Amino acid sequence: MSWPDYLKQHQAAHLEDFRAFLAIPSISAQPARQADVRRAAEWLAGRFRQAGFTAEVCPTAGHPVVLAEYCPYPDRPTVLFYGHYDVQPADNPERWNSPPFEPTVVDGRIVARGASDMKGQVMAFLLAAEALIATGSLHLNVKALIEGEEEISSPSLPAFIEQHRERLRCDMIINGDSGQLSETTPLLSLGARGICGLEFDLIGPSHDLHSGSWGGQVQNPLHAMAELIASLHNPDGSVAVEGFYDDVEPLSPELREWYKRIPWNEAEMKQKLGVPEFYGEAGYSPWERITGRPTLEVNGMWGGYMGPGGMTVIPSTAHAKITCRLVPYQDPDKIVALIRSHLEARLPKGVRLEVRVKESGAPAFRMRADHPVAQVAREVLTELYGVPPVETMFGGSVPILSTLKQQLGHDPVSFGFGLEDELIHSPNEFFRLSSFEKGKQGYARLLMRLAS
Amino acid sequence: MSWPDYLKQHQAAHLEDFRAFLAIPSISAQPARQADVRRAAEWLAGRFRQAGFTAEVCPTAGHPVVLAEYCPYPDRPTVLFYGHYDVQPADNPERWNSPPFEPTVVDGRIVARGASDMKGQVMAFLLAAEALIATGSLHLNVKALIEGEEEISSPSLPAFIEQHRERLRCDMIINGDSGQLSETTPLLSLGARGICGLEFDLIGPSHDLHSGSWGGQVQNPLHAMAELIASLHNPDGSVAVEGFYDDVEPLSPELREWYKRIPWNEAEMKQKLGVPEFYGEAGYSPWERITGRPTLEVNGMWGGYMGPGGMTVIPSTAHAKITCRLVPYQDPDKIVALIRSHLEARLPKGVRLEVRVKESGAPAFRMRADHPVAQVAREVLTELYGVPPVETMFGGSVPILSTLKQQLGHDPVSFGFGLEDELIHSPNEFFRLSSFEKGKQGYARLLMRLAS
Repeated sequence: MSWPDYLKQHQAAHLEDFRAFLAIPSISAQPARQADVRRAAEWLAGRFRQAGFTAEVCPTAGHPVVLAEYCPYPDRPTVLFYGHYDVQPADNPERWNSPPFEPTVVDGRIVARGASDMKGQVMAFLLAAEALIATGSLHLNVKALIEGEEEISSPSLPAFIEQHRERLRCDMIINGDSGQLSETTPLLSLGARGICGLEFDLIGPSHDLHSGSWGGQVQNPLHAMAELIASLHNPDGSVAVEGFYDDVEPLSPELREWYKRIPWNEAEMKQKLGVPEFYGEAGYSPWERITGRPTLEVNGMWGGYMGPGGMTVIPSTAHAKITCRLVPYQDPDKIVALIRSHLEARLPKGVRLEVRVKESGAPAFRMRADHPVAQVAREVLTELYGVPPVETMFGGSVPILSTLKQQLGHDPVSFGFGLEDELIHSPNEFFRLSSFEKGKQGYARLLMRLAS
Repeated sequence: MSWPDYLKQHQAAHLEDFRAFLAIPSISAQPARQADVRRAAEWLAGRFRQAGFTAEVCPTAGHPVVLAEYCPYPDRPTVLFYGHYDVQPADNPERWNSPPFEPTVVDGRIVARGASDMKGQVMAFLLAAEALIATGSLHLNVKALIEGEEEISSPSLPAFIEQHRERLRCDMIINGDSGQLSETTPLLSLGARGICGLEFDLIGPSHDLHSGSWGGQVQNPLHAMAELIASLHNPDGSVAVEGFYDDVEPLSPELREWYKRIPWNEAEMKQKLGVPEFYGEAGYSPWERITGRPTLEVNGMWGGYMGPGGMTVIPSTAHAKITCRLVPYQDPDKIVALIRSHLEARLPKGVRLEVRVKESGAPAFRMRADHPVAQVAREVLTELYGVPPVETMFGGSVPILSTLKQQLGHDPVSFGFGLEDELIHSPNEFFRLSSFEKGKQGYARLLMRLAS
């Protein structure tokens, strides 16, 4: 039997498998669900075994990792698939049209928490591998690393990977926690920005003061805050923190050419975001600004009286939260230290500074457009959708990509089938059955091509 | 009988009068108390009549004004006394040790809402005048203007004064809504700063954006806010709004000499306010900064995520509230217009500006230290306390002072007996019985001296 026939013949049974997986409420964020999370791991390891893998539920400091292996070919390459089996909480059950853990098919969509993010793609990959194994068509080694803590920022994963580096050794990496641009347009992402963050307080008088009685003689923490925040950027839109760009590689001419090919419809984008005009670092195109250049953004800033009417107060404190998006070679810890130094050096008179660093920093990830696995992914997507993928990078951060690259030495290629409208992290999350089928087809073709 | 004997003889009856006045819950802010406010006005007019005045409860657009007159001397000067009979709300009755409208004497203090602010001083003035009239000692004309809306910013008073300017004509004005520095140290205030205010929004994208996806290409309203707020001051601490100082008179050498005599204990003040160091406009002393120079203060500034942890957002909007303290010759409306122009001229790219002007602006008030009524007040206070008054100005705003001056053409001299610790606007407000006696003595002596 050919693998496509195998998939076709088992279509109904595969949907039942998917349902069974979705029915387990593997909510990593809720301690009460710990046993369910473990149950999902056990179920998944069992299903991998059924497909022909060896599989193990491996303990970590937190929720377990499922490690599955099909490695019969000592002389052939090995591909590692990354995914996660945990899901977001599903509170507010009244906002769900059907219970979040009773998967329901409506109009070609399967509605359940975790359907799109990302049990659908874990199942699609597993079933594709199974079809190839069952039909004697899998000609390379496959490992699957499926974690249970992605929705809580993967606290245990970096240590786990480091500890099991030998066992996870591979020649190429596929990240399944990803998606396509639309039902008809595929997407190939070649990078994601890193992230680091801090928050700080400016502390002036020990209590709020009457601005009539003391205005003019006491530093207003809000004035000091505005001065400090304003000092973080230059008039040309670039970041003014000394050393911020020191480790940033200039965009290569090839990369800038590549950027020019990403579509950008200024009028449409303005409308979508509802901005009167765009603004950013001088000398760079929109996509270069969003994904190729680092940024510093204030995510929150506050102090004083914020209610209706007025209150003539000089507040005791002012507060700000900042995150930066990083590009390759910028180190999250170093950037945070530079910002702290900048704030300390420019601290206005009359206020004290207290800085708190966020711990979840991550460096950027970027791969070459001509990377051989990216090239294979590009070909498979073109075959599958009939059009070549839109190529881009993410402006946001996908810390797993740099973790995998750092620990295992290969650029992970993102190859998944979620779509933007599938209500992930919201009530009524769903996954298209057509995406489920496309996923199985896509992963099978990818594994076939990677073997050759 | 001498007027001191008269006061002594009626001491007990006067305390009962004071109690009766305090028992009427004349809370101007609460529509449900409208009848009580009116009842307090009627009671007060009746008591003025009993003292020998003609008195009338005059309607306004809001709560009525009590107008009392004792004007038997066509050829002698007339003094106008300003006060208010309304009081703050007294919510949270559980925080009062005795019901707010059941006046209770404890340890030489009478506890009731409005005792210190300012039924105590209205009664003291009325009883002083009564004692002088009853003993044939009042040798000038007296008018009293007692409003019922001071605690809600006197919305009807300016129009009322303008409308009754002829009837309110006088030669000198006493403002009783005032106080002393302590039980042993009198205070003579020669001015108060004016006030004006506005609030504004900066509006960027039509909804909050993910700072990973869009950071770098979209103006962050918080950055724009910081830039705008920072642009309002110069590095030397002065206000950077063009034209802000145009109408400000330089401090005269005499005034600067006068300022040098106000005590300023730097270490003690630092401790009291809990500031690491003081900060203000270069070239001016602390008291000059606080009362002699205008200021621009941000009272509130906010936008984005303010909760615990982080949220990678570019907020749609940012907000700020600003008030200015003004000195003589600065016009509140003009200053607000200058600030608006400043903001408009410096508006960063990518955001829209929406300004809302606060309506309750008021110009500054300042009188000469050698003003003849101030000189009389100085003498009476010195006599009464055995030490000369500390002379100062208020950094805060007392709009009634400039209203009276503008409409009636005379500098009001503040002469009242409240003390800072008397919990005005708080539960358990009280007035010292000793201040009540001192008030009667003080007003009687003042009226005696003003006649000569």
